[in-house]
Amino acid sequence: MVMRIGSGPAIEALVFDVFGTVVDWRGSLIRWVEGFGAERALTADWAGLVDAWRGLYQPSLEPIRTGQRPFVTLDVLLRESLDRLLPDFDLDALGEDDRRLAARAWRWLDPWPDSIDGLSRLRRKAIVATLSNGGVGLLVDMARFGGLPWDAVLSADLFRTYKPDPAVYLGAAELLGRTPESVMMVAAHTFDLVAARKCGLQTAFIDRPFEYGKRRIDDPDRKEAWDCSVSSLEELADRLGA
Amino acid sequence: MVMRIGSGPAIEALVFDVFGTVVDWRGSLIRWVEGFGAERALTADWAGLVDAWRGLYQPSLEPIRTGQRPFVTLDVLLRESLDRLLPDFDLDALGEDDRRLAARAWRWLDPWPDSIDGLSRLRRKAIVATLSNGGVGLLVDMARFGGLPWDAVLSADLFRTYKPDPAVYLGAAELLGRTPESVMMVAAHTFDLVAARKCGLQTAFIDRPFEYGKRRIDDPDRKEAWDCSVSSLEELADRLGA
Repeated sequence: MVMRIGSGPAIEALVFDVFGTVVDWRGSLIRWVEGFGAERALTADWAGLVDAWRGLYQPSLEPIRTGQRPFVTLDVLLRESLDRLLPDFDLDALGEDDRRLAARAWRWLDPWPDSIDGLSRLRRKAIVATLSNGGVGLLVDMARFGGLPWDAVLSADLFRTYKPDPAVYLGAAELLGRTPESVMMVAAHTFDLVAARKCGLQTAFIDRPFEYGKRRIDDPDRKEAWDCSVSSLEELADRLGA
Repeated sequence: MVMRIGSGPAIEALVFDVFGTVVDWRGSLIRWVEGFGAERALTADWAGLVDAWRGLYQPSLEPIRTGQRPFVTLDVLLRESLDRLLPDFDLDALGEDDRRLAARAWRWLDPWPDSIDGLSRLRRKAIVATLSNGGVGLLVDMARFGGLPWDAVLSADLFRTYKPDPAVYLGAAELLGRTPESVMMVAAHTFDLVAARKCGLQTAFIDRPFEYGKRRIDDPDRKEAWDCSVSSLEELADRLGA
């Protein structure tokens, strides 16, 4: 009944990247900001704003990962990035309340169609937990919004740094009371899997070709020999016999 | 639709003490060690062992709360206490594997009869999370064992100290992205509520007269004016309109 790949170690817990792996951040955010604009009779390049916002995501984490800036949560960084972008989209007239609301939109993201069924099946056999750069509060609100059945909400903010800092992967295994090799990192981004593998975790790559809309991003490492490489969380459940 | 008491602040999250408040540690542990003993053809005063084990619980936390000892998880402390007690119960012949197994029994605790329904109802209106001195791994295993529907598993071990250290209550509110006054601490032990209230949290006392079996423990503070004082988690849901 134990899940394992071949003769590999038993998988006692699966930890999931969330943005892009479990939820469709781009489609959801575009729908949300379009609705937000319509309610306020604003026109703008909403898809362009979302893509630019996502473009500032990794750069905003970097000063914290390198220790140049003290830790702040992703909520703070998302708000800063939004403030920086609004003038470029002729939206600098937006007031404080609207900015605060819009910065929270990264909670209200829809799961990919396979996510809830896949997680529910996997959860019967092992712990399923988030391991995201989104903060605990954001992830809890998102899970309640989308009905994501997590056993635990773990986040980089518990370790006051961001992925791919090894402290995040090793810290998650330790908090769960498991060895790194009994934990599988599940992600649609290979930088995350590379870092997890260095820490001794097992790895599952989820191919999400439309994460960035129609402009498919081909990650040169995506064909690497991950412990498992699949197209959905349901296929992951199939592969692991869950 | 928001939950509040009278004209008090909206309750956005409820955080729960677990041992005694949500699960019947004493009845469950006695049943577990009796079964463990029967399988090994051992006889002992099993209820006495459980009570003595619980007796060492708070004293084992104290050197960590005061900073005399570096943080270790409750799993480590429970094992140390067990090792210390076994000779008194003529069980010092127990081997390493059996000791390791028995120390994990604090995960396999049954919810009180009202816990799952009460939590499920409260969860429709607000975040429900643990806030226990048990570690994240222990609490996740317990939730999976007993079917406890948590939105998040928060624990003192995230802050590397133990309740009633204020860092635990304030840290939980911060991780959830909520102000302390929008969070309600729910506990059957008044020391926990006293500390939570000092940090600005709202407080709900759950009367669990049989936590210690037939010998009812009367806490002198139990009649204090908590924001809410009830006999079960279902009654808490009633009181909060959930």
